Amino acid sequence: MLQSKLFTKTRKEAPKDEVSKNAELLIRGGFIHKEMAGVYSYLPLGLRVIKKIENIIREEINGLGGQEIFMSTFHPKEKWVATGRWNTMDDLYKVKDSSGREVAIGPTHEEIVVPIAREYVSSYKDLPFSLYQFQNKFRMELRAKSGILRGREFLMKDLYSFSKDEKEHNDFYEKSKIAYKKIFERAGIGSKTYITFASGGTFSKYSQEFQTLAVTGEDTIHICEKCKVAVNEEIIAEQKVCPECDNDKLQKEKAIEVGNIFNLGTKFSDAFDLVYLDEKGEKKKVIMGCYGIGIGRLMGTIVEVLSDKDGIVWPKEVAPFSIHLVELGDSAEVRAKAEDIMARLEKEGIDVLYDDREVRPGEKFADSDLLGMPYRLVISERSLKEGKVEIKERKTGEMNMVSEKELFDKVFLKKLIGP
Amino acid sequence: MLQSKLFTKTRKEAPKDEVSKNAELLIRGGFIHKEMAGVYSYLPLGLRVIKKIENIIREEINGLGGQEIFMSTFHPKEKWVATGRWNTMDDLYKVKDSSGREVAIGPTHEEIVVPIAREYVSSYKDLPFSLYQFQNKFRMELRAKSGILRGREFLMKDLYSFSKDEKEHNDFYEKSKIAYKKIFERAGIGSKTYITFASGGTFSKYSQEFQTLAVTGEDTIHICEKCKVAVNEEIIAEQKVCPECDNDKLQKEKAIEVGNIFNLGTKFSDAFDLVYLDEKGEKKKVIMGCYGIGIGRLMGTIVEVLSDKDGIVWPKEVAPFSIHLVELGDSAEVRAKAEDIMARLEKEGIDVLYDDREVRPGEKFADSDLLGMPYRLVISERSLKEGKVEIKERKTGEMNMVSEKELFDKVFLKKLIGP
Repeated sequence: MLQSKLFTKTRKEAPKDEVSKNAELLIRGGFIHKEMAGVYSYLPLGLRVIKKIENIIREEINGLGGQEIFMSTFHPKEKWVATGRWNTMDDLYKVKDSSGREVAIGPTHEEIVVPIAREYVSSYKDLPFSLYQFQNKFRMELRAKSGILRGREFLMKDLYSFSKDEKEHNDFYEKSKIAYKKIFERAGIGSKTYITFASGGTFSKYSQEFQTLAVTGEDTIHICEKCKVAVNEEIIAEQKVCPECDNDKLQKEKAIEVGNIFNLGTKFSDAFDLVYLDEKGEKKKVIMGCYGIGIGRLMGTIVEVLSDKDGIVWPKEVAPFSIHLVELGDSAEVRAKAEDIMARLEKEGIDVLYDDREVRPGEKFADSDLLGMPYRLVISERSLKEGKVEIKERKTGEMNMVSEKELFDKVFLKKLIGP
Repeated sequence: MLQSKLFTKTRKEAPKDEVSKNAELLIRGGFIHKEMAGVYSYLPLGLRVIKKIENIIREEINGLGGQEIFMSTFHPKEKWVATGRWNTMDDLYKVKDSSGREVAIGPTHEEIVVPIAREYVSSYKDLPFSLYQFQNKFRMELRAKSGILRGREFLMKDLYSFSKDEKEHNDFYEKSKIAYKKIFERAGIGSKTYITFASGGTFSKYSQEFQTLAVTGEDTIHICEKCKVAVNEEIIAEQKVCPECDNDKLQKEKAIEVGNIFNLGTKFSDAFDLVYLDEKGEKKKVIMGCYGIGIGRLMGTIVEVLSDKDGIVWPKEVAPFSIHLVELGDSAEVRAKAEDIMARLEKEGIDVLYDDREVRPGEKFADSDLLGMPYRLVISERSLKEGKVEIKERKTGEMNMVSEKELFDKVFLKKLIGP
């Protein structure tokens, strides 16, 4: 894409009302736009990140056999009354429909997905399966000061599993952990993200959170470096040692919850009578699990933990573009070369943001660092003369001059764009 | 995809509370699920159609230079007060935020997109551009009895153009017409869809609707068969002849509005002071247009106008799967052959729904007609013996026996999956 055509521009100053690093950098880069506290719009660069994150998640959840659906935002009141949550969920938004009836604005989708499942489940042959979606969720957050980490309106992947019995449920639950680890690795925060034991509700001793170390995190976790797992502060009083190896030397850290997986047991099957007939013709309850990842929150977390003083450092698989091609000077030769290289890179399936703007080199470099594509490629009079292009890796700052032949070497390109 | 793994099933009976053909067939086929009047969830088959429609639109709108964004659902009240629509738009949903402040639940996005544009527009050099999104919209419909044609919550593509002057605006407006025609052609309803002159508001004599002929349509249009354009009933009293050729023999027909394009002039630029400095340093107002396509409505219209007594007939480019592979009998040879053919088709990039269920052939054929993939491919003991597979085109009912060699002939495959 030509940067001159991109309707957004970078800003030098952060908006005064934003206190979080993620919102500050994302707004300065033109990735997002704040509409009100906890409510943001995603601009072209930001939406590209969202879509890349969604695609990673889609691939991994499809790998679990998940079937993608898209549920409604408006939920009938009676479904929420049926689960007892109409009056107990404090952050539930309610709105009057044209008929004068109240409806809920979905903060989570058990009330919708379970009645859907019920229409299609009657026999053990119909199980197991799992359903997921990417959807805007709405929660009446009292404090929404963390940028896109905690919104009143936020994008989420929610997955629900339906199993015949505990064993089948546990199998899926364990597989979901592996898929989640893969997702966070591909999103570039794998090494900083810990499976964390948290309180489990009615049906299991623990639930599992995925917590990413961040000094700005709202959560506190206690890490066992031996097992690479953690315990959430909320249960550390009763669980003073590592649940896996009994190690009592746990390291206290701040972290951001980027995902969670939860055994729902029969809580919602009970509410909606979600049952099936087993091989012997006996009625059994369906065992459920739910598995969430906040898409905006994941994007915000990546910015919180991977950015540096100059701006954002996008990991390869979630960057809006793989390469930021920067042209210096306004000679026809430089432009022709830049256009040629862009076309050839795009032919190889590589996303390129091409800075063709007529601005000073210093401004181009500063913008490039702020926007944070994994590689910056500079084409200038000088590079033309030398028959080489300059490549800078955003993460390490490492610079190299390479010939075009080297640049288009498949192995080199693969290294550039990953994974 | 294996049909045995699909969590939905077909139903013989239509739900009693659905009076529209689109909802009846889509619910019977397991494409959608009704949550309440005018509110539906999209199940795996339905979401596949939605995504195919979105991709067609994305390609064509990107071709116009449109930049994709994703705006918020919650809109600050003050933006709606600024345009004067807070109290005048009857179907606007309002909800109280945690702070006690009221917010609007977006029925359209001028109030959001114009302030966003304003942040980045200062000079004539920043124009023109256009922004679009796919978003859930919310409107307090009093009657919501048309299935997914008219919802309280509905998916929409909305595009907004920002131009320096009338000429630039008109250029884009004319190009958008061509893009829209292309979209409806690719969606399979091109020959039934007419550009229709409708009332234009403050800034132009007419706006343009795209109306698709349908006996169940809510709109009435008057067609000039010579020019292939139409006039909406609402302006026929003042416009009794074809606006293009003055032909007064117009044909009255029922139709569904699948899209519209509209000159907004400076209505919203005025409200938010969206101005720029021209080449001479003079302040000028930005000229806007808006361009909508209801995604769910388009899907529903395709069902209304293309289905037959046996079920849905999906056009090639929007079908959830290109081929419905049906295996008959339960011999290991038939299964092995079906799996082999599925794998080879998928390797060619063709979406296949493979009916591997253990049900009677009659049920499989009835389901296949109801679900409506463009081609049905039958593999049975008989076809194995003959060394051929049976292909039936859903639209025409035409059946052919072809050898595997013929099936995998590139030209033949291209014909199958189109475009």
